[in-house]
Amino acid sequence: MTRYKLTLEYDGRGFVGWQRQDNGPSVQAALEAAVKRFCGEAVTAHAAGRTDAGVHALAQVAHIDLDAHIDLDEETGADTLRDALNFHLRPAAVAVLAAEAVADDFHARFSATERAYRYRIVNRRAPLALDRGRAWFVPVPLDAGAMHEAARALLGKHDFTSFRAGGCQAKSPVKTLDALEVSRDGDEIRIEARARSFLHHQVRNMAGSLRLAGEGKWSRADMERALAARDRRAAGPTAPADGLYLIGVRY
Amino acid sequence: MTRYKLTLEYDGRGFVGWQRQDNGPSVQAALEAAVKRFCGEAVTAHAAGRTDAGVHALAQVAHIDLDAHIDLDEETGADTLRDALNFHLRPAAVAVLAAEAVADDFHARFSATERAYRYRIVNRRAPLALDRGRAWFVPVPLDAGAMHEAARALLGKHDFTSFRAGGCQAKSPVKTLDALEVSRDGDEIRIEARARSFLHHQVRNMAGSLRLAGEGKWSRADMERALAARDRRAAGPTAPADGLYLIGVRY
Repeated sequence: MTRYKLTLEYDGRGFVGWQRQDNGPSVQAALEAAVKRFCGEAVTAHAAGRTDAGVHALAQVAHIDLDAHIDLDEETGADTLRDALNFHLRPAAVAVLAAEAVADDFHARFSATERAYRYRIVNRRAPLALDRGRAWFVPVPLDAGAMHEAARALLGKHDFTSFRAGGCQAKSPVKTLDALEVSRDGDEIRIEARARSFLHHQVRNMAGSLRLAGEGKWSRADMERALAARDRRAAGPTAPADGLYLIGVRY
Repeated sequence: MTRYKLTLEYDGRGFVGWQRQDNGPSVQAALEAAVKRFCGEAVTAHAAGRTDAGVHALAQVAHIDLDAHIDLDEETGADTLRDALNFHLRPAAVAVLAAEAVADDFHARFSATERAYRYRIVNRRAPLALDRGRAWFVPVPLDAGAMHEAARALLGKHDFTSFRAGGCQAKSPVKTLDALEVSRDGDEIRIEARARSFLHHQVRNMAGSLRLAGEGKWSRADMERALAARDRRAAGPTAPADGLYLIGVRY
């Protein structure tokens, strides 16, 4: 048995999310089916982040175990695996960017020490043509500086109940937010968030609240109050999946 | 009658191109239909660049004439027009970024003094997931520096017959290429081209030849020879529409 770490890019629009579900195509099922077509093995893929429907990935990380009888050249075996999986993934909008053999105790989800997400907002009057489904369209003017200032209220170790989805299965609502940075580049506002792990919908719920700060409806003190309330109703609405990208995982 | 200059963004994938055709939806027809739904007027839209099927625009420019009886507020009329057209353009992947009243002798196509195009190549082993249909996937390694060097052979005023599509309707194959710059940012190679005007398929044919330079198959001297041959067969293949973006027009 050899464990492989796979780095994946995908367009979340065609999927019910990472995780296999009965109600539609998932990234996990697409990957597992490609492995089956490649070598006949029925594997279970584990991912660092169980992204929701419509959420994209620039660099999701997953691992799979393959039996040793797979004839992979020692030098180039990982590249062969990457290319073969990409061949068998078609036409799904999933690409294996890299494959590498890792130690048997590596776990894509449990070994991760940091996850990084980007949330994209296109802030202009005109609706999206090229970025439809790939960013949140916000037509009212947003002040990225005010958003960045409000974001600072969330940094560090806190009970993030106010930003946690109802169905979240995490044992504890306490998380440590290492970075939450907001910047503007032309019409685009980018929110970048880094933490060891996040609660379900945490980034989208933070993005929804940051929009309120960008509109001038919320100050940094309002963000602090929302956090302290430990009540989902105290924070802003959930931002749509369209703008969310899992951009990297550290181990 | 008031003439309006419109700046348009569109995703070329769903269109047979800018120009109205019998075989499918065009950007021109989508825009003209939106105008009709908005104010009942049957207009003909003229664009700076008649982009082909699958070619995208970040900032195409078109103009339309509307009768004066359209009740547009003097201060905000252009914004009203922009917002109304965007409303009526849905669900087409076309957005009006800006609308402004211009002089009657302004012509989107004939008044243009410079057009700028970007050609995007994603150069990596893994196929495209997020950029499918929006970049040219080239899996073999390309040397962007060598591409940039070869591109310099095409700068200036030349007979571009070697880079001209068979069906090109331009009166003369002589054009002046003001800029052709190649740069790499990670996996992405960008070619930026600027000229008063281009021949049909000129940017895509230059991109196809630049790929040969990037692969090491062509030197700058080969590019010079291809140009001097004044024969389409002497240059490289036509790069796909996917990677081409009209990014701006100057007047």
